[in-house]
Amino acid sequence: MMQKFDIADSKLAPLGKKRIEWAERDMPVLREIRERFAETKPLKGIRLSACLHVTSETANLARTLQAGGADLVLIASNPLSTQDDVAASLVEDFGISVYAINGEDDKTYYDHVVAALQHQPQLTMDDGADLVSSLVFIEIGKLSGLHESVAAWARSLEPQDVTALTERVIASMEETTTGIIRLRAMEADGVLSFPVISVNDAKTKCLFDNRYGTGQSTLDGILRATNLLLAGRSVVVAGYGMCGRGVATRARGHGSHVTVVEISPLRALEAAMDGFPVLPLAEAARVGDLFITVTGNKHVLRPEHFEVMKDGAILCNSGHFNVEIDIPGLEQLSKKIHRDIRPFVDSYEMHDGRRIHLLGQGRLINLTAAEGHPASVMDMSFATQALCSEWAVEQRGKLPNQVVDVPERIENWISASKLKSMGLHCDKLTSEQEKYLASWQEGT
Amino acid sequence: MMQKFDIADSKLAPLGKKRIEWAERDMPVLREIRERFAETKPLKGIRLSACLHVTSETANLARTLQAGGADLVLIASNPLSTQDDVAASLVEDFGISVYAINGEDDKTYYDHVVAALQHQPQLTMDDGADLVSSLVFIEIGKLSGLHESVAAWARSLEPQDVTALTERVIASMEETTTGIIRLRAMEADGVLSFPVISVNDAKTKCLFDNRYGTGQSTLDGILRATNLLLAGRSVVVAGYGMCGRGVATRARGHGSHVTVVEISPLRALEAAMDGFPVLPLAEAARVGDLFITVTGNKHVLRPEHFEVMKDGAILCNSGHFNVEIDIPGLEQLSKKIHRDIRPFVDSYEMHDGRRIHLLGQGRLINLTAAEGHPASVMDMSFATQALCSEWAVEQRGKLPNQVVDVPERIENWISASKLKSMGLHCDKLTSEQEKYLASWQEGT
Amino acid sequence: MMQKFDIADSKLAPLGKKRIEWAERDMPVLREIRERFAETKPLKGIRLSACLHVTSETANLARTLQAGGADLVLIASNPLSTQDDVAASLVEDFGISVYAINGEDDKTYYDHVVAALQHQPQLTMDDGADLVSSLVFIEIGKLSGLHESVAAWARSLEPQDVTALTERVIASMEETTTGIIRLRAMEADGVLSFPVISVNDAKTKCLFDNRYGTGQSTLDGILRATNLLLAGRSVVVAGYGMCGRGVATRARGHGSHVTVVEISPLRALEAAMDGFPVLPLAEAARVGDLFITVTGNKHVLRPEHFEVMKDGAILCNSGHFNVEIDIPGLEQLSKKIHRDIRPFVDSYEMHDGRRIHLLGQGRLINLTAAEGHPASVMDMSFATQALCSEWAVEQRGKLPNQVVDVPERIENWISASKLKSMGLHCDKLTSEQEKYLASWQEGT
Amino acid sequence: MMQKFDIADSKLAPLGKKRIEWAERDMPVLREIRERFAETKPLKGIRLSACLHVTSETANLARTLQAGGADLVLIASNPLSTQDDVAASLVEDFGISVYAINGEDDKTYYDHVVAALQHQPQLTMDDGADLVSSLVFIEIGKLSGLHESVAAWARSLEPQDVTALTERVIASMEETTTGIIRLRAMEADGVLSFPVISVNDAKTKCLFDNRYGTGQSTLDGILRATNLLLAGRSVVVAGYGMCGRGVATRARGHGSHVTVVEISPLRALEAAMDGFPVLPLAEAARVGDLFITVTGNKHVLRPEHFEVMKDGAILCNSGHFNVEIDIPGLEQLSKKIHRDIRPFVDSYEMHDGRRIHLLGQGRLINLTAAEGHPASVMDMSFATQALCSEWAVEQRGKLPNQVVDVPERIENWISASKLKSMGLHCDKLTSEQEKYLASWQEGT
Repeated sequence: MMQKFDIADSKLAPLGKKRIEWAERDMPVLREIRERFAETKPLKGIRLSACLHVTSETANLARTLQAGGADLVLIASNPLSTQDDVAASLVEDFGISVYAINGEDDKTYYDHVVAALQHQPQLTMDDGADLVSSLVFIEIGKLSGLHESVAAWARSLEPQDVTALTERVIASMEETTTGIIRLRAMEADGVLSFPVISVNDAKTKCLFDNRYGTGQSTLDGILRATNLLLAGRSVVVAGYGMCGRGVATRARGHGSHVTVVEISPLRALEAAMDGFPVLPLAEAARVGDLFITVTGNKHVLRPEHFEVMKDGAILCNSGHFNVEIDIPGLEQLSKKIHRDIRPFVDSYEMHDGRRIHLLGQGRLINLTAAEGHPASVMDMSFATQALCSEWAVEQRGKLPNQVVDVPERIENWISASKLKSMGLHCDKLTSEQEKYLASWQEGT
Repeated sequence: MMQKFDIADSKLAPLGKKRIEWAERDMPVLREIRERFAETKPLKGIRLSACLHVTSETANLARTLQAGGADLVLIASNPLSTQDDVAASLVEDFGISVYAINGEDDKTYYDHVVAALQHQPQLTMDDGADLVSSLVFIEIGKLSGLHESVAAWARSLEPQDVTALTERVIASMEETTTGIIRLRAMEADGVLSFPVISVNDAKTKCLFDNRYGTGQSTLDGILRATNLLLAGRSVVVAGYGMCGRGVATRARGHGSHVTVVEISPLRALEAAMDGFPVLPLAEAARVGDLFITVTGNKHVLRPEHFEVMKDGAILCNSGHFNVEIDIPGLEQLSKKIHRDIRPFVDSYEMHDGRRIHLLGQGRLINLTAAEGHPASVMDMSFATQALCSEWAVEQRGKLPNQVVDVPERIENWISASKLKSMGLHCDKLTSEQEKYLASWQEGT
Repeated sequence: MMQKFDIADSKLAPLGKKRIEWAERDMPVLREIRERFAETKPLKGIRLSACLHVTSETANLARTLQAGGADLVLIASNPLSTQDDVAASLVEDFGISVYAINGEDDKTYYDHVVAALQHQPQLTMDDGADLVSSLVFIEIGKLSGLHESVAAWARSLEPQDVTALTERVIASMEETTTGIIRLRAMEADGVLSFPVISVNDAKTKCLFDNRYGTGQSTLDGILRATNLLLAGRSVVVAGYGMCGRGVATRARGHGSHVTVVEISPLRALEAAMDGFPVLPLAEAARVGDLFITVTGNKHVLRPEHFEVMKDGAILCNSGHFNVEIDIPGLEQLSKKIHRDIRPFVDSYEMHDGRRIHLLGQGRLINLTAAEGHPASVMDMSFATQALCSEWAVEQRGKLPNQVVDVPERIENWISASKLKSMGLHCDKLTSEQEKYLASWQEGT
Repeated sequence: MMQKFDIADSKLAPLGKKRIEWAERDMPVLREIRERFAETKPLKGIRLSACLHVTSETANLARTLQAGGADLVLIASNPLSTQDDVAASLVEDFGISVYAINGEDDKTYYDHVVAALQHQPQLTMDDGADLVSSLVFIEIGKLSGLHESVAAWARSLEPQDVTALTERVIASMEETTTGIIRLRAMEADGVLSFPVISVNDAKTKCLFDNRYGTGQSTLDGILRATNLLLAGRSVVVAGYGMCGRGVATRARGHGSHVTVVEISPLRALEAAMDGFPVLPLAEAARVGDLFITVTGNKHVLRPEHFEVMKDGAILCNSGHFNVEIDIPGLEQLSKKIHRDIRPFVDSYEMHDGRRIHLLGQGRLINLTAAEGHPASVMDMSFATQALCSEWAVEQRGKLPNQVVDVPERIENWISASKLKSMGLHCDKLTSEQEKYLASWQEGT
């Protein structure tokens, strides 16, 4: 069968191969799984469509799934995050079908979604629920919710093919908080017709990837885009979930004065007790030099805030979708937009002369201006993906059509493997201690 | 009915009253509840036995329960943590039955447990599951598990009184991690015959009390006991649960070099990613200047560790029971014990001449040498206790005989009330945002 | 010769002895000096008057000076910081003349100053320049600047005795920033007639004692006085010198949100780049829950600030003199003062009903409510004192009548000795490296 | 006069201009000086040769000097740090003579030094003392110390031109710690024949540029070169001067476990009290994942260390010269060198199979792989340069032929200007306070 793909430039493959190998050095857990998968082939013959950021770390996941026997199609989950050299190497060096071009337009993006659906996947992986939501829109016949490219393809399907499309799905896996919010809404609406494993909520994912990965890489992206001194700067972080506290902690670690904005009173209290001032955005907007959104919500920064910001304020987003900053609202307030005054920096000139700088067009700054999460955290997230694929196939037909948790034994195995790779050592319970913990008869 | 109590010295009441009032200033949530309880009397006529640390903060809980109409007996949950002046004021100024004397011996401690049981409680509150475990031992007839004082009283009961003793219990509330471990073991053994509300696991409790309260007060206790410079000191923290990370964070905030010991690979990884070296205790024992146990487990520090510690090492415990350090094991290795070389400091002279210093006899150092958790965190924990008492009475007969979670609406109310009292403000969702979060139809 | 002294209670000596021994464990550098002094007697026959906080650490300095052969009188430099048991032990167990009673009134305080002057010192040690300023006032005949007790004694002196009093002084040593500010003012006024060694400015003192010692012990004093939860609290630190940054760092380490107030633009910039918001006090006064002054200046907190503070605000001082908070100004704004609502807490009830709490009567909170600097830092400061005494005697007549720096070789010796005692190891230069550093001929 | 220059590509000018403007936004102090210089022309007709990193921040310094009337030649102080687009813009848009090409070879580098000397400078600026040392080598006739390009030119000079070359120099300014070490060695050798102003030691430079600038930009360079997760990583920082503590603090802020290596016992003690373990390099070499040298010394990391490092260890340098890591020694231990496995990463394969990764060929990682110090700190350093140039001309002939400190009033003006630009406010002394600080007559 001839290889199908759509990438920027095959000649970039050698550079991409080096990148993939560099990432592999920091992904020992995934490597251990790959070595086992190569022997046991738990995904033998399974068609798998993955809509993920096409980076060197994802490449190592793809290699692992391939080693396990999966018939894999990989498409980009974000038009700006694709590493073209990595895509090229996956095609050229590893023979994997990749549809992903950095900077692709909307139409191309959705053509790639079509390619992923045409693959007739039995397993899907999502980074924002785009594949699952497309499947659901098609199944419930609400084609108006789809991009025209996808809708056109859906209209071309026979009714039985529509039915088969979702019936075929053993399970899906979701990697982001944003996706989980969407999926739970689908579950509540009763439109989810296959199980979705919440990889995002696995401790091996959210405690590490969201907190340490997003924290570091968000600031990395900001520094690459601006070369701004963070010390002494007033930084406003909207959202104090796992991602938000990662970002806030790292910004403080750079000497910034960080203010937190939250919706939840409980998280707001935690932020306060962690030493951060907590303000509503209407007030925080006046004091910030740099604003970072990590909420999973929409229009967090909006015209009422732009209007009171300081001259020179910098805005960026590290939440999954580029809707957290109301960019159309920003455009409307501007008399002129100076594009690319530095790579990844657009300068919006307000009617009153103030400048507001938007980084990476409001898309995930860590993937747009930097390289996304470091390999070491993606190791844990993608090990979870790989082991959940195996588990989903084992459990075929047994999981409910809901958002399902990752089983604890998968988390435990990953943690132990990672720890070992870092040369770190847990302590062991003595038998006396095991007995003590199991007993309730020993007291004061 | 004449007042029944057993306290050290009634004349201390004026001092205790000032303390109770000082604590009240930092307990606005509990005050708000007390004011409502005084009107609505949700606990009217309910017999309640509480086995808690008798501190100025607990006094404010007792006042709140009393205001709600409860018929209350309060006993000490730890022989060393009672503030005698507070106990005196509760009796003299507020007319509450208190049985608690600082430094009371084992027999007195268990005589007080008997007093709490004789009260024939319908609700109990525990700080380590001592009341519940006594009730269970009596119910299953395993009197050998009880202290002789309690066993003697149990033997004096008619069979129908034994039955009535637990049948009467509407619910119990548990405040500690240690207690929850014991209670889950009881549940697994099928011996739990009434519901227990896990106040400890409420976010309004464990995220604040365990982390911020234990963190600060443990170091406070150590400083009062030793006046040790923490900067530059090698501190070993055993346990990286909520309490442990509070202690580790505060110790690092003092300039200590903190090493973490853990059993769980996941927690060990978190500690490592938070920047702490992770070692097995066998190795950490060689490098520590100061050791702090916060595990909920037994004999964490034991002879094999004492034998390799540095001359001058200091040991203390901030877990609930004084079993985390194997004190008999330490005594056996010693040729001489120098008691009270400073208040709360015993110096064990090893056979090889090294000195190991044990603080507060291995009991909770924050209650023994300092004043326990600050009022501001206890405000949230005790607000949870008070509202759970009300809820338990409302739900009488409807809760399962298991360890039960605190309902989320109680947590939300408390968080919002606390935040308001601190002059902090959450942001509010716009209607557009509420719609966005409830929908799954908006994507890339 | 019979022993002369004035202490609270000789019977406290056994307790004091234990304290002195406990401190000694953490003072290995001073111990090493004491052992050498005991052999070489570098201070043989030298009359030395020391006006210092009479604590267990000072006791170990006193023992060292005594071992060196000094004829020593020790008086309290602060009426509230004396540890009566330590004073008792110094007299009873070590035969040292001590004049110091905790809580002594002004008259007693100055009677003790007279005792120190009557000793006809050849060396003096000061903690705030009280002995030196008394000597200077007497020498220049400005008795109005003295307390009546001292003035009366001064009037009783023959003119030649007055002259001899300062002529006899080989050198003085000063321990505090506050004292150095006063001494430089004396130097500028041309009234300093003997050399003063600025122990305070030695790196072995100010980098450690001021920063790490004051930081920890100030918070320790606040916690003992209030048992306040620091996490989430708004703390205002006035002054960002060595002491101020120690306090600010430790408060942040406890989860407080710390605002800095400064006079110097350079220090203000440093604070900002360290992540602290910087405000003028007029604004900071409105936001603080807790205010800490560490400036060496006067009336830093004054009526204009008290008037805008929140209800319940807490004030304390960790600068040397109790003038940093304008207490008379606070009294004037109050309609009632509630003394000792907790030990070390006075509550000022404003005319508008707000309460402002003053800790330790505005005196050094770390010495008043806690135990002062930990032994480990005082080890370095007092080692500097001891070695400077020796050096002053060696240099007799050669030093200028100015504020003089501690010689670098003393600092180096102390650092190396301390490091060794902590089991830490510097690296060593290779000979290639020594050559490289001494050369300028190797370039790009 | 026709423009003289040597740059990579004039066509890059538009991009460079944007960069220069972006940097200018964060350099308000320098802008304020430039505006004044444009009016007062304090450097009118002064020939000035500057050997600096050719970055967008330096471009703003160049514009300021040009505005002040200087006749300026700018050459690169490091072959890898030149931003070619900035160089192009300086030539094309601002008409400044620039000799700097990123990646230039040694010969070109020294041809550029010759160009700077041929300019017959009256003022020089150095970033590592290369211009000054060339002048000194030529003056003392030790041509063997020079690169052949420079030596050849020197040989071509008439004796009187040699003499004039240094006689003409009014003063030099030095920007780096490394340069100051070299210059003090020259001073000690008696070969310094003109004054050198130690811009590096100005508080406005070293407290900010070295600490906050080097701290952030070093980690920025490492992340761009490696995309490594820093959390949980063992980082060894060699050197705890201002730069070293900046790097150590920021690495800890990223969740790394940081070990410090030092030569000075005093600094080692500070590191320890700041919570960092301190080890000799022989031991630290075994535990580090990432090694960063910031010492100003030579061969800090050398074969004895390479031999015990972990497989995969990463080495980089943030000290001025690329001699801190013994690269020839590393090559000798290697059986193969894999160049550029990622941009800025060379992988040395040891004979035993271990891989050691060297970043940026051991050159300043923050300039090689990132963009050097952020504009905001360079603002202060370069404001110091600009004002010192003015001051040097004013003081012509009055300064000694030594390393000279920056005058305090320059520092004060810069601090105040910066603070104002950040919207921050110092407090002001009351007249009562001014009097208090000037007086010594007020005491206990």
